[in-house]
Amino acid sequence: MPIFVEGSEEEIKMTTKQEFKGVAELLWKPHTTQVRVRYGETDAMGYVYYGNYALYFEVGRNETMRKLGFPYGRIEEYGIMMPVVDMHLHYDSAAHYDDLLDITTGVLELHAASMIFGYIVSRAADRARLVYGTTTLAFVDSTTRKPVRVPELVRERIGIPQ
Amino acid sequence: MPIFVEGSEEEIKMTTKQEFKGVAELLWKPHTTQVRVRYGETDAMGYVYYGNYALYFEVGRNETMRKLGFPYGRIEEYGIMMPVVDMHLHYDSAAHYDDLLDITTGVLELHAASMIFGYIVSRAADRARLVYGTTTLAFVDSTTRKPVRVPELVRERIGIPQ
Amino acid sequence: MPIFVEGSEEEIKMTTKQEFKGVAELLWKPHTTQVRVRYGETDAMGYVYYGNYALYFEVGRNETMRKLGFPYGRIEEYGIMMPVVDMHLHYDSAAHYDDLLDITTGVLELHAASMIFGYIVSRAADRARLVYGTTTLAFVDSTTRKPVRVPELVRERIGIPQ
Amino acid sequence: MPIFVEGSEEEIKMTTKQEFKGVAELLWKPHTTQVRVRYGETDAMGYVYYGNYALYFEVGRNETMRKLGFPYGRIEEYGIMMPVVDMHLHYDSAAHYDDLLDITTGVLELHAASMIFGYIVSRAADRARLVYGTTTLAFVDSTTRKPVRVPELVRERIGIPQ
Repeated sequence: MPIFVEGSEEEIKMTTKQEFKGVAELLWKPHTTQVRVRYGETDAMGYVYYGNYALYFEVGRNETMRKLGFPYGRIEEYGIMMPVVDMHLHYDSAAHYDDLLDITTGVLELHAASMIFGYIVSRAADRARLVYGTTTLAFVDSTTRKPVRVPELVRERIGIPQ
Repeated sequence: MPIFVEGSEEEIKMTTKQEFKGVAELLWKPHTTQVRVRYGETDAMGYVYYGNYALYFEVGRNETMRKLGFPYGRIEEYGIMMPVVDMHLHYDSAAHYDDLLDITTGVLELHAASMIFGYIVSRAADRARLVYGTTTLAFVDSTTRKPVRVPELVRERIGIPQ
Repeated sequence: MPIFVEGSEEEIKMTTKQEFKGVAELLWKPHTTQVRVRYGETDAMGYVYYGNYALYFEVGRNETMRKLGFPYGRIEEYGIMMPVVDMHLHYDSAAHYDDLLDITTGVLELHAASMIFGYIVSRAADRARLVYGTTTLAFVDSTTRKPVRVPELVRERIGIPQ
Repeated sequence: MPIFVEGSEEEIKMTTKQEFKGVAELLWKPHTTQVRVRYGETDAMGYVYYGNYALYFEVGRNETMRKLGFPYGRIEEYGIMMPVVDMHLHYDSAAHYDDLLDITTGVLELHAASMIFGYIVSRAADRARLVYGTTTLAFVDSTTRKPVRVPELVRERIGIPQ
């Protein structure tokens, strides 16, 4: 259950990860970054290997966190790590070597000790949507590896009313 | 909607990918294979990087297909490729460098032009479940890259009555 | 034996791969591109995994080839592939997650059916050199996979007198 | 300069990394282990991506260290890490998806604070040599990340007279 509430200064969307089918309008505070497909990321089919989208999601998520003002490196300085605890990917179409890809990443849900990002990967040349998906990240103490509450900085920058 | 039917010579399970929460009994024709975690598969948290489980799923799927009598290499010789069109992973616990992992893979659903595998990754030393998930694979013509029906060989070896 | 000759319109350097110890001045037509270290590229030591520099070299080489006017995609359209047949890497210092890296790539040797690139990877923040190395690439026919002569386009853009 | 000396109870070989051209007889205490090529390790050429041999070398090295009695995990328990500081690979021929590969790994040189392994990767089916190479590993303190002497256990198991 997302803790997003309606009626705050901005209209806050409440999309659950189940509802997310790759529609950009449902992403909260979306940010788009680009990657170019490396040869080593393709496979013998001539496509990007399906597992490598986890790397692209990571790039999208990191740049979005940086843009929002809480780069992952700073989170780790707080003694907090954010392991991925759930991931879903849906593949509409394939990417090829040297394709320039847009990765649009935004927040879907914010919980007490976790958050869910949504992702849309599309080909920059023709804006065709290739892959969409979600990742759920837990907040854990780097030393004890036990769950901790989402830091105030993160909540603030995401723009959730206190 | 799975096409598995009940009442055939063997009791056939009908688990949908939504229902699969990592319970081995729900996998049809399961097979277990092992991988040992490579240093290059870990990340700075000291865990296996979340995206690398796609490689482990691939190993489990390939060995299970080989065991069932339709190794992926033979499928490709038929002029058929099996791209992954959907993947879900759920991470219960982390694997570390040099851990020996059991990957149990079985069939969850068989459709006209696709099939769904379920996976359970556990640590061999204490049988702790680390990750479970599903992948949906389409059958496509290698040349046209259009969907084709699941080959008879595959249906037969999976043991679905005609 | 490099075919570079002296006394052409530009002073042409003749560095062999054995002589290359990471000095940028010895690279012919160098170009610098950047990559940011992904979490999935680090390992449990907290460093970039040593094998992943092959990916960074690939990025540097591809962007340099694009800059020189013969992007690798165009080479493949000519029915030519360029497999790597030899690689050397020397690691001076380690890169960490989120580091921004400069990859400087240039030509070291041009032979009848192969070419050798040299690479220097340094940290953008303090210009510390982290890794240097070389790769030898063969030119082969995509169909027969037999060696072919370096295409005229490549020789021309590298600026070797005919 | 290798510290191997002749005339001990066993005839001790002294191959330098420069001399190593993929001849198994020059490897000290060789051990062979196998890997099967994963789809995700191939690239759009249909071959194993050149950078992925670093992973195969790692597997060969780790299993050889385990066999010799000093598994890498135990080294790390001593508070010592072994980063790779130099690597050379030479590619004779290509590996394909599902190929079963033999990785023969042995010691080439042992120095005060580093050691050099040699590797030969061949296809199990026809024993064709595909790749050979070397890696130089430093011994460093896990905390200070400064060089330390090769542990006594390692020297002993490699069979160098004191």
